[in-house]
Amino acid sequence: MFNKITIIGCGLIGSSLARAIKKNNLAETLVVVDSNEESRAQIRTLGFADRVMDDAAEAVHNADVVVLGVPVGAFRTVLTDIKDHVKGGAIITDVGSTKKKVLEAMEDIMPDTVHVIPGHPIAGAENSGPTAGSATLFQDRWLILTPSQKASADAVETLKTLWEKCGAMVEVMDTNHHDEVLAVTSHLPHLIAFSMIKTAADLEEETTKEIIQYSAGGFRDFTRVAASDPTMWRDILLENKDVMLPLLQRFSEDLTILQKFIRRGDGDALYDYLDTARTIRRSMNK
Amino acid sequence: MFNKITIIGCGLIGSSLARAIKKNNLAETLVVVDSNEESRAQIRTLGFADRVMDDAAEAVHNADVVVLGVPVGAFRTVLTDIKDHVKGGAIITDVGSTKKKVLEAMEDIMPDTVHVIPGHPIAGAENSGPTAGSATLFQDRWLILTPSQKASADAVETLKTLWEKCGAMVEVMDTNHHDEVLAVTSHLPHLIAFSMIKTAADLEEETTKEIIQYSAGGFRDFTRVAASDPTMWRDILLENKDVMLPLLQRFSEDLTILQKFIRRGDGDALYDYLDTARTIRRSMNK
Repeated sequence: MFNKITIIGCGLIGSSLARAIKKNNLAETLVVVDSNEESRAQIRTLGFADRVMDDAAEAVHNADVVVLGVPVGAFRTVLTDIKDHVKGGAIITDVGSTKKKVLEAMEDIMPDTVHVIPGHPIAGAENSGPTAGSATLFQDRWLILTPSQKASADAVETLKTLWEKCGAMVEVMDTNHHDEVLAVTSHLPHLIAFSMIKTAADLEEETTKEIIQYSAGGFRDFTRVAASDPTMWRDILLENKDVMLPLLQRFSEDLTILQKFIRRGDGDALYDYLDTARTIRRSMNK
Repeated sequence: MFNKITIIGCGLIGSSLARAIKKNNLAETLVVVDSNEESRAQIRTLGFADRVMDDAAEAVHNADVVVLGVPVGAFRTVLTDIKDHVKGGAIITDVGSTKKKVLEAMEDIMPDTVHVIPGHPIAGAENSGPTAGSATLFQDRWLILTPSQKASADAVETLKTLWEKCGAMVEVMDTNHHDEVLAVTSHLPHLIAFSMIKTAADLEEETTKEIIQYSAGGFRDFTRVAASDPTMWRDILLENKDVMLPLLQRFSEDLTILQKFIRRGDGDALYDYLDTARTIRRSMNK
């Protein structure tokens, strides 16, 4: 399907995409870049890339598609490194969890001849690194593309097909809207999980030990995402700051209302609140 | 093993215990009480009880073990109904999620000849009612007993064996300690899940629709417990108020610290916080 695809940053998502491209024969040459020497050695052993390199500028030469798989906080540095080396007509995309700042950075830095089409696969796991990836990670999962208005419809269609051949269901969306929806479905749950771990860890040692023992009561599932990569999540929370802060405010208000009902022992108001939430949650299973 | 066991309140947990007792042949006669006519009809059809009744006082007559399966908010009413009808030497227990107030109520109301041994199976599901139960619900799950100091060691051992024969792993604990540990592992996660649903539902309609579509990003697993029974959770949150309120305060503080790091764009502090939480969360998998 493509002559050459280059993936820069080969963690869980980057290495899963590499595996899926290789498995489905989507590129003549698949080049993978990672700045970490140990990761490069692992990738060579795993054997899912035709070439493993450490120089991004060299690696993007003549690529039809360039995918950024590094944490979003490193995007501007990488884009600056490669901007003079990506060929005209190529597609530049990514797999990061925020899209507004990513689109801005790509439009700012990349030449106009390159099609800027940020992307976000709604797939992941709490493990990270190239050994954690899987060729089927995107199977039946959503993939959201947030193209620049300057990207051609053909280029968007081409990238859509690439992801569909990797098993994903593709949707095109505006960056602001993406960041708002994902703040609720993913960023806030992660932030709360990290925070709950902190709360639990600060209790007496004996209690913390038992929290682990009895964590099947909800805590274990609830905090699973707090095992995710801290660099990635630092960048996501900072990049999506403008959406996260008002959302956190709304959440704190809703939590405070519940707290007040409990303090006053207002059983009726508490019941109504919980019953409404249950009705809404159940409607989500349909 | 027993001549007669009476279970009062036959929802998810009560009906699962009834099924497990029947399946493992633990009682000559198993009597189930439910105040809801529709539930009684369902229980008769399901056929896991020898007798289905609506009068608790009559149902406990001559029972060796009486199990309260109603929401904890109804305990004092039920205990008052049955106190003059439970035989001397019988065991009274329950399956509620808070233990301090339950122990107080049972000790207050029941005669001294009855062995008061509150219990809490750490098992459940978001569905409720007698049709939702299963004979294997307690298999390899924890069951915590918080006996009155006046209950005999033999009675505690007997009840322990009953639960073990239903598949559970039994631990004996002080009520205060139980309520503190469960507040963190179960009550706070439920409260947050209910609260998050409310936050999500108050956003624009279009966004709410897409939250459902993309909820695999964390939201779906995270809020699953918000589909739980609102009567039960109203009672749990109110009964465990003395532990919940300071815990909520601690959680709010930890959340506020994260919020401040995001607002100030303090990447280093944010990274340290997330990295510490990840390390702790990972240690829980061992």
